[in-house]
Amino acid sequence: MNQSIKEYIISINSAIEQENFGDKPQELYEPIRYIMSLGGKRMRPLLSLLSYQLYKENTKDIVPASVAVEIFHNFTLMHDDIMDNAPLRRGQQTVHEKWNSPVAILSGDVMLVKAYQQFIAHCPIEKLTEILQKFNQCAIEVCEGQQIDMNFEEMEQVHEDDYIEMIRLKTAVLLGFSLELGGILAMDNEADHALLYQMGVNAGIGFQLMDDLLDVYADQEKFGKQVGGDIIANKKTYLLIKAKELASGENSIKLNHWLNAKDFDKEEKVNAVKDIYDDLNIKKLTEAKMNQYFEKAFQNLDDLDAPAEKKLIIKDFFNYLINREQ
Amino acid sequence: MNQSIKEYIISINSAIEQENFGDKPQELYEPIRYIMSLGGKRMRPLLSLLSYQLYKENTKDIVPASVAVEIFHNFTLMHDDIMDNAPLRRGQQTVHEKWNSPVAILSGDVMLVKAYQQFIAHCPIEKLTEILQKFNQCAIEVCEGQQIDMNFEEMEQVHEDDYIEMIRLKTAVLLGFSLELGGILAMDNEADHALLYQMGVNAGIGFQLMDDLLDVYADQEKFGKQVGGDIIANKKTYLLIKAKELASGENSIKLNHWLNAKDFDKEEKVNAVKDIYDDLNIKKLTEAKMNQYFEKAFQNLDDLDAPAEKKLIIKDFFNYLINREQ
Repeated sequence: MNQSIKEYIISINSAIEQENFGDKPQELYEPIRYIMSLGGKRMRPLLSLLSYQLYKENTKDIVPASVAVEIFHNFTLMHDDIMDNAPLRRGQQTVHEKWNSPVAILSGDVMLVKAYQQFIAHCPIEKLTEILQKFNQCAIEVCEGQQIDMNFEEMEQVHEDDYIEMIRLKTAVLLGFSLELGGILAMDNEADHALLYQMGVNAGIGFQLMDDLLDVYADQEKFGKQVGGDIIANKKTYLLIKAKELASGENSIKLNHWLNAKDFDKEEKVNAVKDIYDDLNIKKLTEAKMNQYFEKAFQNLDDLDAPAEKKLIIKDFFNYLINREQ
Repeated sequence: MNQSIKEYIISINSAIEQENFGDKPQELYEPIRYIMSLGGKRMRPLLSLLSYQLYKENTKDIVPASVAVEIFHNFTLMHDDIMDNAPLRRGQQTVHEKWNSPVAILSGDVMLVKAYQQFIAHCPIEKLTEILQKFNQCAIEVCEGQQIDMNFEEMEQVHEDDYIEMIRLKTAVLLGFSLELGGILAMDNEADHALLYQMGVNAGIGFQLMDDLLDVYADQEKFGKQVGGDIIANKKTYLLIKAKELASGENSIKLNHWLNAKDFDKEEKVNAVKDIYDDLNIKKLTEAKMNQYFEKAFQNLDDLDAPAEKKLIIKDFFNYLINREQ
């Protein structure tokens, strides 16, 4: 990874560590410090710094504003984990498990307010309204995406386009906002603001498709979670949606058998569904879709009115993420 | 009730009815329209209009901004009802009962964002930062109050001062903010902004003490809930806290008996605890405390730099609320 990117991450982490959030009652603030300290890639504030450096040198200036996006992201994780009944987050107990659901609801609520507080304290007044309007839009779309994702669990059939729209809302628009935030804070070129947003949305959809692929095809040694977890849980990923669409005859019968199986050997199910995916060329199809979105993101990057050597830092970073786990 | 107050409430309700909030996914937006349509006194936006009319005529101008406070208030109700496992709200099913908890968490989250959206869309730009800073502070304090209230449930002994501080945070500061909001939107006299806030906080503490009293002493015919509900549930109200503090000898033994009783006749418990309250003069003590706060609120009102006949509208409204259910 590029040296300046490492430094960006250090300054983001240092700003997060210095944030106290609040003291009393401690049941409200301990969970906030806890989830914020679990780490993660700090991808969203990093994206804000990366778009800012395209136009300006002093990236440190926008670290506090960029942290607002990380607070918001962790708020969504805290609430999503309650809704999804998730026991673990980044290998540690989730907040509703370690404390309880009321604490996780309320600490999350405070985090959402804290995100606004952070923007208001650290964005220049003349840009604040625009930033908050775009943030509101983004925050609402993230909630819509989460609700649509929950709705999908109850649906028999999900269409490919609806899935792409769901991941656009649930995960990609926040990457778009993060990149646009750095752009808005750096300069006033609205065409570039829009391109930065589009780049984030396109890359975000690509990264989610990559996550769907990795869950099936990752090297278990390098992968943080159980490979095949999505298959075991019948999670409606892009791969399963395409397989259901394309399967016919024997493949369709086998796929339905495994989707309806109650008692099964996990490894046997994962291998059987992978065989169906192989037969239907699902990996290639998903890679092609993913690469379409990455190509669009790189095209957005090319189109920006910024120095080529600065763009290269973002291009290299995206390529690093794309190649890291494959 | 004063004719202009009735008109204020009509214009607030009409603004709320015209608000669509959003369409898809409907699981996210139906619960918002549902809870906003359950009614209630619309006390908070009404307070904003009442403070605004002290200084300006065109109260209609601030109806949209005042609705933000009502959206925020209903967000707190939606989330509190999950945390408190409440089956009913204003005689109707709560959102987590009618739908489910994930829906109530996520719809509530969207409402909090919508409250910000409403402020940003309808507050003059030069006042927006101040309003949002004060709203953030208030929103965080409301969450702190709810957490402290939940903590009290687990505690053996709660001190009177801690109880007053809890209700200040949980309910009174939002009345303070609502009044201050109308003041900020009307004029720039910071001394009056502070007085309006204090008036709301003092009145809010008074109203909560009144609620504590009514839960025990209201006329069942007029009271919306079961009289004695707090006693049955061992709710740590001001009355119970004072009774535990003052009870000795036989009263202390009896009070502890009823607080620890598992199987009991509800009416018998309510009457027995009321007898102890009577013996300890709890009603008078609570009324005295409540009246202290109402007197402070009326003093704040007196001190405002506004026309006496406009102040009288607020004074009459507070007196109407104070005398209505007693």
